[in-house]
Amino acid sequence: MEMKTTRLEAFSDGVLAIIITIMVLELKVPHAVELAALKPVLPVLLSYVLSFIYVGIYWNNHHHLFQATEQVSGRILWANLHLLFWLSLFPFTTAWMGENHLAAIPTAIYGFVLLMAAIAYLILERAIIAKQGRESFLALALGKDWKGKLSSALYVAAIPLAFINSWIASAFYVFAALLWLIPDPRIERKLEKREG
Amino acid sequence: MEMKTTRLEAFSDGVLAIIITIMVLELKVPHAVELAALKPVLPVLLSYVLSFIYVGIYWNNHHHLFQATEQVSGRILWANLHLLFWLSLFPFTTAWMGENHLAAIPTAIYGFVLLMAAIAYLILERAIIAKQGRESFLALALGKDWKGKLSSALYVAAIPLAFINSWIASAFYVFAALLWLIPDPRIERKLEKREG
Amino acid sequence: MEMKTTRLEAFSDGVLAIIITIMVLELKVPHAVELAALKPVLPVLLSYVLSFIYVGIYWNNHHHLFQATEQVSGRILWANLHLLFWLSLFPFTTAWMGENHLAAIPTAIYGFVLLMAAIAYLILERAIIAKQGRESFLALALGKDWKGKLSSALYVAAIPLAFINSWIASAFYVFAALLWLIPDPRIERKLEKREG
Amino acid sequence: MEMKTTRLEAFSDGVLAIIITIMVLELKVPHAVELAALKPVLPVLLSYVLSFIYVGIYWNNHHHLFQATEQVSGRILWANLHLLFWLSLFPFTTAWMGENHLAAIPTAIYGFVLLMAAIAYLILERAIIAKQGRESFLALALGKDWKGKLSSALYVAAIPLAFINSWIASAFYVFAALLWLIPDPRIERKLEKREG
Repeated sequence: MEMKTTRLEAFSDGVLAIIITIMVLELKVPHAVELAALKPVLPVLLSYVLSFIYVGIYWNNHHHLFQATEQVSGRILWANLHLLFWLSLFPFTTAWMGENHLAAIPTAIYGFVLLMAAIAYLILERAIIAKQGRESFLALALGKDWKGKLSSALYVAAIPLAFINSWIASAFYVFAALLWLIPDPRIERKLEKREG
Repeated sequence: MEMKTTRLEAFSDGVLAIIITIMVLELKVPHAVELAALKPVLPVLLSYVLSFIYVGIYWNNHHHLFQATEQVSGRILWANLHLLFWLSLFPFTTAWMGENHLAAIPTAIYGFVLLMAAIAYLILERAIIAKQGRESFLALALGKDWKGKLSSALYVAAIPLAFINSWIASAFYVFAALLWLIPDPRIERKLEKREG
Repeated sequence: MEMKTTRLEAFSDGVLAIIITIMVLELKVPHAVELAALKPVLPVLLSYVLSFIYVGIYWNNHHHLFQATEQVSGRILWANLHLLFWLSLFPFTTAWMGENHLAAIPTAIYGFVLLMAAIAYLILERAIIAKQGRESFLALALGKDWKGKLSSALYVAAIPLAFINSWIASAFYVFAALLWLIPDPRIERKLEKREG
Repeated sequence: MEMKTTRLEAFSDGVLAIIITIMVLELKVPHAVELAALKPVLPVLLSYVLSFIYVGIYWNNHHHLFQATEQVSGRILWANLHLLFWLSLFPFTTAWMGENHLAAIPTAIYGFVLLMAAIAYLILERAIIAKQGRESFLALALGKDWKGKLSSALYVAAIPLAFINSWIASAFYVFAALLWLIPDPRIERKLEKREG
């Protein structure tokens, strides 16, 4: 059944590779040739950087998650597609927020899609644990998953905050990304132990 | 010959990953920043969700189909490309139907492309069974394929219905998708038996 | 060194999957909802079908070629990228020809890019044979490669013909595609023999 | 842990395949059908060729680099994503430079992104060597990496040069590409020795 996981990973890699790359199409090539022509591109570029990092985080975590997964069920396949669906909306919300210099509604919607992706990731984790058993390697490695919970809490807080001060809301998104930038040491440590 | 199947699957995964992702490019970023600005995006988003689920269904079924396939012939390669061709028209028909709020002709054309993809899938199944023999594991697992036949019948019925009431036609498309949402238990059950 | 071939194939599959799929982006979604609205889409659709078949042919032949290849050299890597370059121009030439209803110059340029891709494929074959030796399985399987030569001759003839009658030139492109639609029996037969 | 490298390579292949292919979307299909209609396309085509070769070089070198890599760490994953980020800006800088016939600022920015990609590649090499040890096969194979240093020096020189004469700056980019066109013989030679 090894191949099953491989193909799910290959398909997810394909979708994530496209999401991360088509966001760059929103960087509209300016007609002018002065440095000032880059000024309207800058906020789009900054939200591109943030979303690039987010897709990178999801790819890294997805990689670690399936490193510890052996079998795939129908429920896991659909939980994975559900996650990819929310990630596929990143280019849209990134462009809307970037082109409007952090206006309240686009910034809140950006956080909403981040939140839905985080929830979809939790559902995927649960689906895998349901298949492998509560005493499985993965269930123990994930433990209480405080990172997943804390970042979800940050998105929930940032959505109403966007209407008061969208810069603070964005700072929350950046902070939640920083939380995840380091690949999950819980699984990595356990993997090393298992091999040792 | 194992590698042969692998490469056909990898190429199909690539094409399906791109189809599922470029549909999101049809979600045009609004210039306004009010919630109302999302209103024209909504029908496009809904038809995106429907088509995302359809591509997900095809990916899942394709995955199960080739899980049970060992060798690839020239006929299978072209039957697979034929299926990918019809699936590649999804972004076009999805956008046309979504942007025109279920107008009759775009809704009928949407169903026509669904029907052609369903027929192409049947041809692919037949090509694989022709290669593996009528007594093969796959031929027995698929059996009478009532799901494939019922969903094709739904598309055939929905096409003229679109001219009377396009909402009912769309309900048929949604219902046919629900039929398939659960990955094919016929093959899965047989696979488990074979291993057991 | 097996992995080397695998990665070159995976990268080529990715590029071919994208080329075959982004061509569909040229099918501009009409604003009207009558069947007549599809009329301007039709020639673009027809040239899309032709180019889809051509990319499918290249993918099939590429698949057969590397099925019979064991090692990859720097020269093969670049010969492969050179082929992908010409194939990557298909979406451009397809759209230009399709949108202008087979006008002379776009039809001639379409043939020129087909010709360059055919030459690039021959160079790739030579690079692989140079690596594997003139007495190798592949060299014997390809033999005189009359198909490659005949289709190249058809493109050479079609380019000036486009200025006289672009419909005849297009018929040449269709005929050359039909030549190739059947996967290369030379290699397939030899592969079967080797296994037998 | 073999699979880990495989998945990083597959994801990178996906991103590079998309970067190399979406650049072609900047070749806007002309409305006219005369040969003269291709004239404004020509500079975009030329910068496409240059960037295609650059992405090809990065793919080749990336291929060789991971051929000699056995394990992947969190640091390597992020160093790789950092490289992909700068490469993902190629379509933007290529189009800006191409559409403005080598105007000073776009030409300088093009060089800046080339420089950042070169630095990101060096960081990736360092991350891999840090994981494998200074006495590892890769560390010895790369040696002093004069090519990496010389091409970086060329980009640094070309950026201010773009403001004096953008043709000379572009000549520097072409020359740096030529340096790399031949796949890294250092690693290839050592690989052959190790096998011998």
